[in-house]
Amino acid sequence: MKPCIVLQTDFGISTGLPASMNAVITTIDPEIRIYDLCHEVREYDMRLAGRILASTFPYWPSGTVFVSVVDPGVGTTRRSCVAKMKNGSYVVTPDNGTLSYLYDEIEEVREIDESVNRLPGSDNHHTFHGRDVYAYTAARLASGIISYEEVGPKYDVEEVIHFEMPTAQIIDGSACGEVTGAYDHFGNVGISIPNEMIKEVGVSVGDMCRVEIIKDGVTLYDKEMLFHKSFGWVKVGEPILNESSNDYVEISLNQRSFCEQELPELLESYDLSAYKVRISPLKGE
Amino acid sequence: MKPCIVLQTDFGISTGLPASMNAVITTIDPEIRIYDLCHEVREYDMRLAGRILASTFPYWPSGTVFVSVVDPGVGTTRRSCVAKMKNGSYVVTPDNGTLSYLYDEIEEVREIDESVNRLPGSDNHHTFHGRDVYAYTAARLASGIISYEEVGPKYDVEEVIHFEMPTAQIIDGSACGEVTGAYDHFGNVGISIPNEMIKEVGVSVGDMCRVEIIKDGVTLYDKEMLFHKSFGWVKVGEPILNESSNDYVEISLNQRSFCEQELPELLESYDLSAYKVRISPLKGE
Amino acid sequence: MKPCIVLQTDFGISTGLPASMNAVITTIDPEIRIYDLCHEVREYDMRLAGRILASTFPYWPSGTVFVSVVDPGVGTTRRSCVAKMKNGSYVVTPDNGTLSYLYDEIEEVREIDESVNRLPGSDNHHTFHGRDVYAYTAARLASGIISYEEVGPKYDVEEVIHFEMPTAQIIDGSACGEVTGAYDHFGNVGISIPNEMIKEVGVSVGDMCRVEIIKDGVTLYDKEMLFHKSFGWVKVGEPILNESSNDYVEISLNQRSFCEQELPELLESYDLSAYKVRISPLKGE
Repeated sequence: MKPCIVLQTDFGISTGLPASMNAVITTIDPEIRIYDLCHEVREYDMRLAGRILASTFPYWPSGTVFVSVVDPGVGTTRRSCVAKMKNGSYVVTPDNGTLSYLYDEIEEVREIDESVNRLPGSDNHHTFHGRDVYAYTAARLASGIISYEEVGPKYDVEEVIHFEMPTAQIIDGSACGEVTGAYDHFGNVGISIPNEMIKEVGVSVGDMCRVEIIKDGVTLYDKEMLFHKSFGWVKVGEPILNESSNDYVEISLNQRSFCEQELPELLESYDLSAYKVRISPLKGE
Repeated sequence: MKPCIVLQTDFGISTGLPASMNAVITTIDPEIRIYDLCHEVREYDMRLAGRILASTFPYWPSGTVFVSVVDPGVGTTRRSCVAKMKNGSYVVTPDNGTLSYLYDEIEEVREIDESVNRLPGSDNHHTFHGRDVYAYTAARLASGIISYEEVGPKYDVEEVIHFEMPTAQIIDGSACGEVTGAYDHFGNVGISIPNEMIKEVGVSVGDMCRVEIIKDGVTLYDKEMLFHKSFGWVKVGEPILNESSNDYVEISLNQRSFCEQELPELLESYDLSAYKVRISPLKGE
Repeated sequence: MKPCIVLQTDFGISTGLPASMNAVITTIDPEIRIYDLCHEVREYDMRLAGRILASTFPYWPSGTVFVSVVDPGVGTTRRSCVAKMKNGSYVVTPDNGTLSYLYDEIEEVREIDESVNRLPGSDNHHTFHGRDVYAYTAARLASGIISYEEVGPKYDVEEVIHFEMPTAQIIDGSACGEVTGAYDHFGNVGISIPNEMIKEVGVSVGDMCRVEIIKDGVTLYDKEMLFHKSFGWVKVGEPILNESSNDYVEISLNQRSFCEQELPELLESYDLSAYKVRISPLKGE
């Protein structure tokens, strides 16, 4: 069975644009199964695209061809690429930071040679590379019509544009990191601190802890809350620090939106790394 | 051909979370066809999930495996189950009320034994059972890797959590029921009164009738309107009582939102059964 | 391999309604591949449905069966039809204007005979023809269960309801047309003026030009801006006239919404043809 293609864009589901990517793929090879990752990535938010891509990447079979098109530079001079990943999958994307969160998984990268890898007849279209270049190249790669080498010239993985990754460390007995995600939906806040590090600073599942969010030295949020496995262990509307499904902790309100109720500015930010998080055991415990 | 899987969640389409459920399924068996029911169920609204599931259930082939994950109790102690339905299909879901509207269709129910039916390596993930437990179990069931008996121990269908169902009856010559649905989209209001009961109280297609909506003894809405087959039989913006596509009547404004314009509080409610509806023939007719 | 079916509706993705169309199709023939075009067409906007359909149509394989259900007249007396297109594809839709933008591609049209082409048991359902008539007929046509002739009686293509098409012409050295699209998402404004006509009036890629938007003789917008291949050639937030991916120009703000920031009334209009556009070379250039 042929590899599947997984599509991500910021095109939105009300535009019909993702359908034309499906059309190009199924015209090239109707046997290719196409799945949607997300077409409602916030417009032009390459960091968010990168995080969503990385969160689902490990669950797909080896050989999967991912297409991620969040592309404020479409039609200008940014590079289009196909990254071959260490597990045998591929990512077809503008080289604009989307690969940041999978950077360590890249085995090799090639620039798409648009003189051969472009939908015939699309030379005068400069704003829909998702259809004309990325879907077209992904389909021909997945179908075996072109080899990976035929994508275009290889370049150094070091040249792939990647943002600085969030980090976490223990300082003075507190787990210190930064915000990595803030979602309209559900409204919980992802943090760069691994589940395990919370336990290392002496907070066990079922313990209370202190959670601070700080920006530019100003404390925006400072509360004590339960640390537990999921958000359902406190009353509806109460805050909780819980283990997430990707091995990092998150801050939630049970069945309510933490972002909307406590810190709406998180939902507006395109660079969450400015929001620092400190998690500490309660004194006396 | 293998049975298909139909997915419903409240994860939202901007999160990428449904994609990881697809990933788990296609990794287990790439031949399984996956369809989306809805990923924009209002967060934590098990009643709505149950209604949407029941509205589409009869149209799918026998043997279909439905997965419905609207799950405020994820990671706590609520039971996960697979219900075997009388028509040979299955529903994989937290046992939290989602099965209410299909309760009479359940033939047998089993609790998912997570010690064997859980994505390997996911033991430390407590907030994404949609991926780690439900999609994983559904895929292995649909693929024939496990039998229904291998899902886990059987329990009494009577124990399945189910909400009280809306009813309708004729009182003093009026059809009396309650609101069963209120939708952002289109904005019509579903009612528990069957099309046929309207006719039993003497209102025929093409007749005018009186529609009252009452909460806690207070009349919130009281108007005369046409009863007809669909909303298009009155002028744009006018109210109409029309037969719905599921054998129950609904209140609409032609090409406008009844909920938004007449009774917005319906859109906020998580328990619509408090809204009683009375439909009466006009006096003198 | 059987032809695929492509679905478009204004049912919204929060209702679960599109799933029942999938259910009907896969019950008839599980081998048919189903793709979504768009289920978030603005409610009752047949013009928008027509434009989205026309924008993706050329990219699908010959033989594709499109279903487009944006249908304010459902359950009333409007005609249901299947148009056979010159390229061998089909469009199954209410005959209400949705075919306007593909009118020249129609080879033959037949009215759906609902006495035979209707989901068995659905005779009492008058508001969900998307499921009961259109999906049902499309599936049986795509599967080869019925021939095109068995859809129902043929009628004159001239009778197909079609809106007046937007035009463009050069007047006094300016390219003059009208607004053809205004999108919530991205917020750019489509215009009926072909890329080539801009060049004919003496504006080359990289030149500045003057863009006016006029309604009922009143100038609503009048600015000088760059003309280029894509929106990324100006600073973030600046206006630009750029070539679109469908051979017509559009007005954008780089990474911002032109509609929201400059002319929000465009987003409310159901008939954009009232908004005239004039594009002129700068004097002295």
